[in-house]
Amino acid sequence: MENSSTNSRFRSSLFNHDDEDQDKEYVGFATLPNQVHRKSVKKGFDFTLMVAGESGLGKSTLVNSLFLTDLYKDRKLLNAEERITQTVEITKHTVDIEEKGVKLKLTIVDTPGFGDAVNNTECWKSVADYIDQQFEQYFRDESGLNRKNIQDNRVHCCLYFISPFGHGLRPLDVEFMKALHEKVNIVPVLAKADTLTPSEVKKKKFKIREEIEQYGIKIYQFPDCDSDEDEEFKQQDQELKDSIPFAVIGSNTVVEAKGRRVRGRLYPWGIVEVENSAHCDFVKLRNMLVRTHMQDLKDVTRETHYENYRAHCIQSMTRMVVKERNRNKLTRESGTDFPIPTGPGLADTETEKLIREKDEEVRHRAEHGHGHDHQHGHDLNNEHVHEHNHGHDHEHEHGHEQHQDPHVEHEAHSEHHPPYPEGS
Amino acid sequence: MENSSTNSRFRSSLFNHDDEDQDKEYVGFATLPNQVHRKSVKKGFDFTLMVAGESGLGKSTLVNSLFLTDLYKDRKLLNAEERITQTVEITKHTVDIEEKGVKLKLTIVDTPGFGDAVNNTECWKSVADYIDQQFEQYFRDESGLNRKNIQDNRVHCCLYFISPFGHGLRPLDVEFMKALHEKVNIVPVLAKADTLTPSEVKKKKFKIREEIEQYGIKIYQFPDCDSDEDEEFKQQDQELKDSIPFAVIGSNTVVEAKGRRVRGRLYPWGIVEVENSAHCDFVKLRNMLVRTHMQDLKDVTRETHYENYRAHCIQSMTRMVVKERNRNKLTRESGTDFPIPTGPGLADTETEKLIREKDEEVRHRAEHGHGHDHQHGHDLNNEHVHEHNHGHDHEHEHGHEQHQDPHVEHEAHSEHHPPYPEGS
Repeated sequence: MENSSTNSRFRSSLFNHDDEDQDKEYVGFATLPNQVHRKSVKKGFDFTLMVAGESGLGKSTLVNSLFLTDLYKDRKLLNAEERITQTVEITKHTVDIEEKGVKLKLTIVDTPGFGDAVNNTECWKSVADYIDQQFEQYFRDESGLNRKNIQDNRVHCCLYFISPFGHGLRPLDVEFMKALHEKVNIVPVLAKADTLTPSEVKKKKFKIREEIEQYGIKIYQFPDCDSDEDEEFKQQDQELKDSIPFAVIGSNTVVEAKGRRVRGRLYPWGIVEVENSAHCDFVKLRNMLVRTHMQDLKDVTRETHYENYRAHCIQSMTRMVVKERNRNKLTRESGTDFPIPTGPGLADTETEKLIREKDEEVRHRAEHGHGHDHQHGHDLNNEHVHEHNHGHDHEHEHGHEQHQDPHVEHEAHSEHHPPYPEGS
Repeated sequence: MENSSTNSRFRSSLFNHDDEDQDKEYVGFATLPNQVHRKSVKKGFDFTLMVAGESGLGKSTLVNSLFLTDLYKDRKLLNAEERITQTVEITKHTVDIEEKGVKLKLTIVDTPGFGDAVNNTECWKSVADYIDQQFEQYFRDESGLNRKNIQDNRVHCCLYFISPFGHGLRPLDVEFMKALHEKVNIVPVLAKADTLTPSEVKKKKFKIREEIEQYGIKIYQFPDCDSDEDEEFKQQDQELKDSIPFAVIGSNTVVEAKGRRVRGRLYPWGIVEVENSAHCDFVKLRNMLVRTHMQDLKDVTRETHYENYRAHCIQSMTRMVVKERNRNKLTRESGTDFPIPTGPGLADTETEKLIREKDEEVRHRAEHGHGHDHQHGHDLNNEHVHEHNHGHDHEHEHGHEQHQDPHVEHEAHSEHHPPYPEGS
């Protein structure tokens, strides 16, 4: 309920500076997070969730249950023959939903339920390609001239559905997750958990976690707790981490259980309640995905997976330019003054070093989580830490000539200062 | 006092999902702004403020008064001869301050008080260059391979000090502001306002606003109010807009006025209280700069001034590459396959069109404010607006070949798909 009075709260924080705020020691920049909060509400949010795994594991039902919306209104169930073609397509559903004044543009990327095909070799390929294509589009857009209305279709999370009937992971699961784990945040779920008893769930989860470790699969790592969090928070965080893979049950049906109307499944032996945490991890998954970690999933996508993709692209471009230049050297002399993003010196040493570092970082995250990576660049000392950057002081001399105003003389400007970096 | 319990508030919003939250119609993404809030606190903030204007107008004193810190501890006052050299330098002071758990890395960029030199021709040049250099550095950094720890030195706001003794603006003021107004958010202040009576302040403000309009100077425009704000909010917002240029008085001295200890100036005829809104606009300026509009100043810098600079850079690069290619055509045939950011087709038509649009946009903002520009891309309908993007559906076919996995075969990948845009 913390958002119900967003507007009035901000209105008061923005203008009604009462006597308290006239406090001699209070400047007022403590309102910065509120300014950010307010702007984010105004702008609205977006989130792209991919679902993958064998067909028939209840992917669509779970998504509908998670977001209390019918994303697949128009879907028709296909017969066996049609299903062979159905599996080759990746489809995208977008829905604008609003809750307590917060707008979310939710996109669900539905991948072919790959168990359906007879030959599943490289079934992960089209999914991996899809993710790369979204990165590529974003790379083009953010390298372009007009970046005002870039549509960001990068995939923030992939819910990977594991069959409750396998003995742990199936070879296809391993292959699929390994093909994707450096491109997207994978969150494994144990599907249709109402076919397993609590002790079976426990054993199966343990087995799957063990195999994930054993096969070197890097699933999404929850960020570490801050050390200043209280014990209760830390315990809940640990519980969340121990719930992987989340055992889930989906249902779009409301049934009556002990006088309450709940979403669930009515069996002759009892009622399975989707949102009862004694029955499955549905609520835990939804809380993680929506209420606590949605922003982190977006941040990791942007800061790690996308940056990874981008670094690989730049590396290959650089290699190509170097090759081209070497070719040019045979025909003419002055082929070295192109303003390309990365200079020739970088090509085989610096670039590769950086990419190795990035790979290392991804590995590190997978092993140790990444919660603290977001926190950097700020001195932890309390107040008035003077940092007179004398290295940077006096960095400017009056009347120097080499830097031209780009508004005045474009050609001259860029010939003196190629705006893309050449050496760093 | 809205931030005093930041941690506990978030802790409870992140994990304690009580019965209220089990509401059947509540998914939970309304916590997204809180996730953003929380992350912003964790990461910390930075802000770069530039002060400019004639020397002797109390720039340093005002900055110290604004942030309740002594940024100029080490500064020595210079004699007349020294001052001639002093004025040619731009200096930068950084201080880490913390308030209610919110960390701010504040950078003050101090520009030469230009009235000191005998010849002030192009005195704005070094300041304009400084701003461009920060943009250029950022452009290099964000075009580089490792973008993890980019230090952002872009100038978010320039407080421009106007002398209380001029009859409105001086020619130098006009020249200076016009040279900078497309690069930085200019906030004009009427300095040392304790030398003017209230009616003089009123007349001088009116004159200055008139001249700003008349000379086509585009100062920072406060974003428009949302139409759903209440009347009180709208009135305060209008008052803020009518206060331009803020009449300010700085003081680092605490004096006793009617039994209270206040920051002020003790005259034989009375005490000028810096934070008394009947005496000057200091509190209004501080509220605007720090408590209400700091994030907007950063956003406009990033979205308008920097994007403007970047577009000009890319345009000049493109022109250069086209020239180079034309030169190449004379010597060899196959010179057209470089993966440059913007393709040749763009050079003189698309690029320039986009830059014209950007210029138009800046003009539009200056004329109409820009408050609503941040809000786009989200449907305003309430819930469950289905948007089955059938244009984008089925966008993927199984087993197609043209997109290579960049992890596997870099050279092939980039030769099929130059990752930089060639046509958009």
